[in-house]
Amino acid sequence: MNNHIYLLLFCHLSIIAVQAQEEVQKIEPISFSQVTITDNFWKPRIEKVAEVTIPVCIEQTEIKTPRIDNFLKVINKTGEKAEGRFYDDSDVFKALEAIAYSLKNKPNPIIEKKADEWIDIIAAAQLPDGYINTYYTLGGLEASGLEERWTDMSMHEDYNGGHLIEAGVAYYNATGKKKLLDVGIRFADHFASIFGPGKRHWVTGHEELELALVKLFRVTGETKYLQLADWLLLERGHGYGVGYTWADWKDTAYTQDVVPVKQATEITGHAVRAMYLYTGVADVAAQTNDIEYIDAMKTVWEDVVYRNMYITGGIGSSGDNEGFSEDYDLPNAEAYCETCASVGMVFWNQRMSLLTGDSKYMDVLEKSLYNGAADGLSLSGDRFFYGNVLESDGSDNRREWFGTACCPSNIARLISSLGDYIYAQSQDAIWVNLFVGSETNVNMTKTKVAITQLTDYPWNGDVKILVDPVRKSEFEVRVRIPGWVDGQASPGDTYYFLNEMKSKISLTVNGKDTKYEILEGYAVISREWKRGDQIELKLPMTVNRVVANEKVKENLGRVALQRGPLMYCFEGVDNGDQALHIILGDDVEIEATKEEELLEGIVTLNMEAAVVSVSDDGKKVSTESRHLKAIPYYTWNNRGSSEMQVWVPRKVTKVRLTSR
Amino acid sequence: MNNHIYLLLFCHLSIIAVQAQEEVQKIEPISFSQVTITDNFWKPRIEKVAEVTIPVCIEQTEIKTPRIDNFLKVINKTGEKAEGRFYDDSDVFKALEAIAYSLKNKPNPIIEKKADEWIDIIAAAQLPDGYINTYYTLGGLEASGLEERWTDMSMHEDYNGGHLIEAGVAYYNATGKKKLLDVGIRFADHFASIFGPGKRHWVTGHEELELALVKLFRVTGETKYLQLADWLLLERGHGYGVGYTWADWKDTAYTQDVVPVKQATEITGHAVRAMYLYTGVADVAAQTNDIEYIDAMKTVWEDVVYRNMYITGGIGSSGDNEGFSEDYDLPNAEAYCETCASVGMVFWNQRMSLLTGDSKYMDVLEKSLYNGAADGLSLSGDRFFYGNVLESDGSDNRREWFGTACCPSNIARLISSLGDYIYAQSQDAIWVNLFVGSETNVNMTKTKVAITQLTDYPWNGDVKILVDPVRKSEFEVRVRIPGWVDGQASPGDTYYFLNEMKSKISLTVNGKDTKYEILEGYAVISREWKRGDQIELKLPMTVNRVVANEKVKENLGRVALQRGPLMYCFEGVDNGDQALHIILGDDVEIEATKEEELLEGIVTLNMEAAVVSVSDDGKKVSTESRHLKAIPYYTWNNRGSSEMQVWVPRKVTKVRLTSR
Repeated sequence: MNNHIYLLLFCHLSIIAVQAQEEVQKIEPISFSQVTITDNFWKPRIEKVAEVTIPVCIEQTEIKTPRIDNFLKVINKTGEKAEGRFYDDSDVFKALEAIAYSLKNKPNPIIEKKADEWIDIIAAAQLPDGYINTYYTLGGLEASGLEERWTDMSMHEDYNGGHLIEAGVAYYNATGKKKLLDVGIRFADHFASIFGPGKRHWVTGHEELELALVKLFRVTGETKYLQLADWLLLERGHGYGVGYTWADWKDTAYTQDVVPVKQATEITGHAVRAMYLYTGVADVAAQTNDIEYIDAMKTVWEDVVYRNMYITGGIGSSGDNEGFSEDYDLPNAEAYCETCASVGMVFWNQRMSLLTGDSKYMDVLEKSLYNGAADGLSLSGDRFFYGNVLESDGSDNRREWFGTACCPSNIARLISSLGDYIYAQSQDAIWVNLFVGSETNVNMTKTKVAITQLTDYPWNGDVKILVDPVRKSEFEVRVRIPGWVDGQASPGDTYYFLNEMKSKISLTVNGKDTKYEILEGYAVISREWKRGDQIELKLPMTVNRVVANEKVKENLGRVALQRGPLMYCFEGVDNGDQALHIILGDDVEIEATKEEELLEGIVTLNMEAAVVSVSDDGKKVSTESRHLKAIPYYTWNNRGSSEMQVWVPRKVTKVRLTSR
Repeated sequence: MNNHIYLLLFCHLSIIAVQAQEEVQKIEPISFSQVTITDNFWKPRIEKVAEVTIPVCIEQTEIKTPRIDNFLKVINKTGEKAEGRFYDDSDVFKALEAIAYSLKNKPNPIIEKKADEWIDIIAAAQLPDGYINTYYTLGGLEASGLEERWTDMSMHEDYNGGHLIEAGVAYYNATGKKKLLDVGIRFADHFASIFGPGKRHWVTGHEELELALVKLFRVTGETKYLQLADWLLLERGHGYGVGYTWADWKDTAYTQDVVPVKQATEITGHAVRAMYLYTGVADVAAQTNDIEYIDAMKTVWEDVVYRNMYITGGIGSSGDNEGFSEDYDLPNAEAYCETCASVGMVFWNQRMSLLTGDSKYMDVLEKSLYNGAADGLSLSGDRFFYGNVLESDGSDNRREWFGTACCPSNIARLISSLGDYIYAQSQDAIWVNLFVGSETNVNMTKTKVAITQLTDYPWNGDVKILVDPVRKSEFEVRVRIPGWVDGQASPGDTYYFLNEMKSKISLTVNGKDTKYEILEGYAVISREWKRGDQIELKLPMTVNRVVANEKVKENLGRVALQRGPLMYCFEGVDNGDQALHIILGDDVEIEATKEEELLEGIVTLNMEAAVVSVSDDGKKVSTESRHLKAIPYYTWNNRGSSEMQVWVPRKVTKVRLTSR
């Protein structure tokens, strides 16, 4: 592409972006900062993140690893090389982002002081031209120094910068303090001085800067950041990586650089990179209404969800590339399912939901959130899974930290900002997307409306939604009816329920049946609302048996249990120290029981089913009926090492004997 | 190394080689051409090779594949490219070698006519300068034509030439016809005109030419061929591969080119290449008495046998490199154990046995011959295993032929020349190495001695050896006492017997106890022998339980059954269609039974033991005692597809359920 065409493109984008500010997207999320979570499920987790996870992140970042040290070395010009990996700066920024959300939820002067201290250090480490990256500034294992900056697209300078901007935006929104945001703005302007239409090509090696630039556009109102985000998307898929080392951009599939984004039809390569890209694409499309982006994202989404997603909402079946292999290749014990990829699924599906108003995106978001992502963090708040397997021989355990420590701060920032995903609004409607006991206020065209949600979800399917307009007013309340209520285990035909759904939902207003229509998975209640109105939704919390399409070879003849949005698993600790010995016939009755004392209070699934066991002398294998208990997947490995299995044989075809 | 030193080396070698002719090696084998095999075990197999396997090789080589066609294209100058792989010429030569041995065993004018016809074609395809290789002469996929000959050491020009020479020597010995031998001589002289001391470097990419040149030296008496063989050995391990493509000799371990041969301490890379190299080294050492070669071979042999050999005598655990991985990494279901590598073990161990007189080499030869190699050929003579697994889910089957068809003619030439491995002689001793019903004549210093062996080995341990000297004479008869008689499952400590050996051997001469001493595993009977003397050896044919050193992770908690030299396996067809469901407790009694009707007459092992089975509805796994039968490993897969297992659990620690 020559400069002339770039210029045209630039003009075109300016127009769209300016239009976009007026047109706005169809649906806007209600920010977490406007939502108070009051329930017994998420509120304790948010508090745990504030009280435990964030202090752990701070300690690891500053004391136990040299991540803050690298910034101090830049300031003090000690001449020392950077320690750690070239993307370690991003962990500092992601921790700050999580802190920002947490401070908004629950002010904490000590942590805020610490954050301010870090921000001073970061700001002091920024170079006069706006560049900030300790690895290149100090030199590290794979870069000798500043003279090599911006020569290798795989070295995460853009990725780190993106997280800086996200943190700056979050901290500004949470505290009103602009210092970190200004660092991010200077970095963005530095980047824009080198790259962009008419300047040098750049394909982000690990996407992230795109979505960050859209956030920067939103907080500053500066369309140039939106344009730069769009330009970054347009850079992909043209072979511009050649000449940018990483042995000349050796695997374009790994980094979603095979075809232009608008022509993408399938997901390839590294799962987290892909999620951040698609989130950025949806963010840009929400501003520009670019139908080609939206169509491409709808197509790619089907490829992800219909052929490459685990029943937990996790993605990425291969550890080799931290990402995708073949369609339907979904091994359980070797699942990669990086926590960050499930977090990315939440980000992307929220954007798709807002772009389209179709509840299927929120169905997947809910699945990834309650299962694949939630599993990443221990109940204690201080242990993390990087990958989230669906079967374990007991050798998988959450860890205190990682060399590549993307996951801890990522799950922390997701949970701290959970309020972002519950409500949304459009011109004439309030959208209730997730069932979380919470309160918020929505400014509708004609009145302000207080919304209060009361529910013990996901343990119980009863949801009360109090709709309290200041003035009597006509508008819609759109309540998401989860796909699983209608017997859909997941969008697409990869997973389905063995059982029929016998119960239906019940939806009343003020105790009376009410007229509503179902539009794209939402119950749309359109009426004149008045003070004290109360919607009562009852979701049937049956225990569902999920089976997989036979194309998923790994799960042939197996069944998984689901209740509400939660996937269940069998863990050894509840089942005679074994979980891989169970045969769960289709005729076994399963009872759901609330156990307040177990794992901070969960609903367990209980049954009499067959287990295969080996006699003490190792010479006899037999089957007997035993009481078995399944627990929510996200709660496993909170009581020590143990076997675990999500997909259990419905019947056995063969046994393999192990004698080690 | 400069030319000056080469010249010195050349002189030095000449002297050694001339000496060698007088000194001779300690022990000389009795050629198969002097041995008539009369037993019920090998004689039928040799006949089957003559009647079935060799015709199959002829048909495949000439009719079903274009191997002979390639030679015709050279002669007829059709301008067509070579078809097939660059090593396909070698299959023609190996088939001719097998034919030669077979004609010696049992004349067959039709087959001899066919061989003569082929030899005429081969001779006509030799270029005037002695070069012969259809792939380079015609051009093929990886070589455009003659101008590229001798530029890539990985392209098997030397390997093909080595097999040409072996075939020429064998056909000359079998028929007295010299035409093919002359082709081989011209090729050798062509090679020597380009390579050798003071000329160009050459590292054989697939070793073979070395051992062939020693054979050529022996048949012609020309020391230059021995010297050239030695030179080829000395070329290895100096980095001479650089510049000889194969992407610059990328994996020196693969082709045993990491260190000079005399400094080798461990086996690496491709198993067949290694075996042919070591055979050539031992051949050269037998002529030159080079102690450095001998010491290196003893050390490498320990690495092979102590840490890298399967209980079947097979080697090569990895299909990736057709060879070696880590010490003690011996997976059963994924075993590579190429038939050719077991054939190579027979070649090499024979040479080591002759060099040292130590029976441990013959113990390993016997193990590889009766198990790893014999398994390569179906009882019908027309189906072949390329790899020989020790565990199968029923998906492994012998095949009619292969794209890379080294194994069929290799097993054919081994079995046809089996007589080579039974007897040997030294100054004052006749060596009985294998127990095979057979007759031979040995020229001792003072008399000629007829030896007749009568035995039903390996089914029965009774061996009668008739020693019939023309004149009463004093000499030794050295009868190998197999290591397994003393409870040694294999040399080294990788495998051992669980059980004690309760019975001892009995050895009498003319029905009376006789004085003998055991020297390096041989019972040495030194006396004045006279007409009609008869040695009677009784080997205790107990059923032995073999277990593996715990370093062999794959076999932890498992047991294998051995009787005499034969390893046993369980095959599904004898055991309710399953073989992977057996628990063989240490207390299970095992009875050996001769079954004349089964698999051409074998001894089976029968027992009542536990099997684990799954109920029809797939919901119950149980153990019951059943009658089980094990068969000799080499006889499996002769009755259709079936599960098979050599290493069976002694007790079970865990069960893995399969539901596909």
